Amino acid sequence: MEKPYVVGIDIGGQTAKIGLVDARGNVLVQTAIKSNDTDDYKKFIKNLSDAVTALVSKSYSMKDVRGIGIGAPNANYYKGTIEGAVNLTWGGQQEIPFSEYMSKTIGLPVKLTNDANAAALGEMTYGVARGMKDFIMITLGTGVGSGIIVNGNLLYGHDSNAGELGHVTMVRQNGRLCGCGKAGCLEAYCSATGVARTAREMLETTEKKSILRNIPAETITSKDVFEAAVEGDALAKDIFEFTGNMLGAALADFVVFSSPEAIVLFGGLTRSGDLLMKPVVESLNRNVMPRWKNKIKVLFSQLKESDAAILGASALAWELGSEG
Amino acid sequence: MEKPYVVGIDIGGQTAKIGLVDARGNVLVQTAIKSNDTDDYKKFIKNLSDAVTALVSKSYSMKDVRGIGIGAPNANYYKGTIEGAVNLTWGGQQEIPFSEYMSKTIGLPVKLTNDANAAALGEMTYGVARGMKDFIMITLGTGVGSGIIVNGNLLYGHDSNAGELGHVTMVRQNGRLCGCGKAGCLEAYCSATGVARTAREMLETTEKKSILRNIPAETITSKDVFEAAVEGDALAKDIFEFTGNMLGAALADFVVFSSPEAIVLFGGLTRSGDLLMKPVVESLNRNVMPRWKNKIKVLFSQLKESDAAILGASALAWELGSEG
Repeated sequence: MEKPYVVGIDIGGQTAKIGLVDARGNVLVQTAIKSNDTDDYKKFIKNLSDAVTALVSKSYSMKDVRGIGIGAPNANYYKGTIEGAVNLTWGGQQEIPFSEYMSKTIGLPVKLTNDANAAALGEMTYGVARGMKDFIMITLGTGVGSGIIVNGNLLYGHDSNAGELGHVTMVRQNGRLCGCGKAGCLEAYCSATGVARTAREMLETTEKKSILRNIPAETITSKDVFEAAVEGDALAKDIFEFTGNMLGAALADFVVFSSPEAIVLFGGLTRSGDLLMKPVVESLNRNVMPRWKNKIKVLFSQLKESDAAILGASALAWELGSEG
Repeated sequence: MEKPYVVGIDIGGQTAKIGLVDARGNVLVQTAIKSNDTDDYKKFIKNLSDAVTALVSKSYSMKDVRGIGIGAPNANYYKGTIEGAVNLTWGGQQEIPFSEYMSKTIGLPVKLTNDANAAALGEMTYGVARGMKDFIMITLGTGVGSGIIVNGNLLYGHDSNAGELGHVTMVRQNGRLCGCGKAGCLEAYCSATGVARTAREMLETTEKKSILRNIPAETITSKDVFEAAVEGDALAKDIFEFTGNMLGAALADFVVFSSPEAIVLFGGLTRSGDLLMKPVVESLNRNVMPRWKNKIKVLFSQLKESDAAILGASALAWELGSEG
């Protein structure tokens, strides 16, 4: 009989979330451990393996676990490595053989991918993209990430780094500096932090009244902008209009690349609902090659945000069916 | 024994070129027929089939032909149809079941794709991209076309229309009108006709001396610009600089999408050699996410231009191995 469960692990800068997941996408049990209390990756992997075993063994059996899927920053899917992840205390090394070492430690097959790719797999396996073979996942959080599904598979490209759509250039002259080192990137405008930057810019360059003026400019967050917009604040609405316009224009360029059935939006900013969706869809259809006008679905993720990272990572482990 | 030959057909608005090709990419014999002397697609397919049979049978045997690959405008790979090809006299109909009808007529399996996709397959099968699993082909002719190879396969997307990279938006404000109906497309700047438009614009907006001023503006072609640049004309060099800059910036955005090993440039404009290549490579590395700086090969196609269309189409037919 096929083993009925997989483990999904989402490794972040401070914690690693662990969940046991069934084929329908139920997170049966979950826990978390610190990911920043050691600078030795072997120590971290030992802690992680112990936590997985403890979590599963409490009410289930490790014998029923098919494998482990992990979403992590700077993950190389091809090699199973984490490469130069400066935000992880144990990640500085050039090439950490994470999959191999964890697999040896815990005695199960392990697969690794980056967080946005994991989100795309999660959406395809359990979410709004079930049954789709071609779609693009855009994660709108602190940064803008993406996972591209082509013919039912993640697009990894030559070096496993494909799908960095947050770093297409949207503003070619005097663009905002991006964390990646270049300027004008989509991420510098359409991430949560990008929205806050837009707010600060607009407050400075316009005279418009706004309740956002009651907040010290340097502390404004995208959540503040959202709350102001909900209350009908005109400037806050302008900020969403600007953000949605730019995101829609970027999506239009993505469409001519891979001709997806749908684009799925995920992450904190999507809580803004129609405030974001409306200008995105309008801008997409205004900017896209006419052949695709009104043909691309734009959808919000349906995965519960608290479970999504674990679910996405776990989706990777179903591929391990034949090996596990 | 495996059948040793395939037939490649390139259907254009005026002629259809036909060639018999071996596994090493030699075009053994070739011919061409008119493609615009009938408005009945069945008549055209009959003519085409007769021409294939006559060509092959002169010195070879139809029994040794594995199948037929066709490159055609508006081809749908999934359905084997040609859809709304207004530039073909017999192409107006919404969905011409081209593969099916031709296969019935000639008694061989037939596969269809668009010209730029065929070029990418040709390059992977016989050309500079042999052995590569992830690369992007950009065709710089009257328009700008593209074929994207991902993990060894053409990227077709949900509707078989993926890879229209000539229609990403490069100029977001007051962009040139493009043949596709929208404005600011890469194709409106970096095609052969785009280069001629740039020449006319620059002649009008600058006072620079140029031998191009001896040519009536409306008749200037990209070839004129090339020849002037070769003679050291400063304005002509500016035009190539502008074109290469923009193309390189576009390639930088393509790289973050599919992380290719290489980008292969093909078509008339590539005859300009270093005049084009130098600014393209500089601009790519200036505009790309730092992770990929100086890591992406930019190559010119190695296929003989007179054979390339036939070779590209023929490459499609090797996939027919198991069915033929």
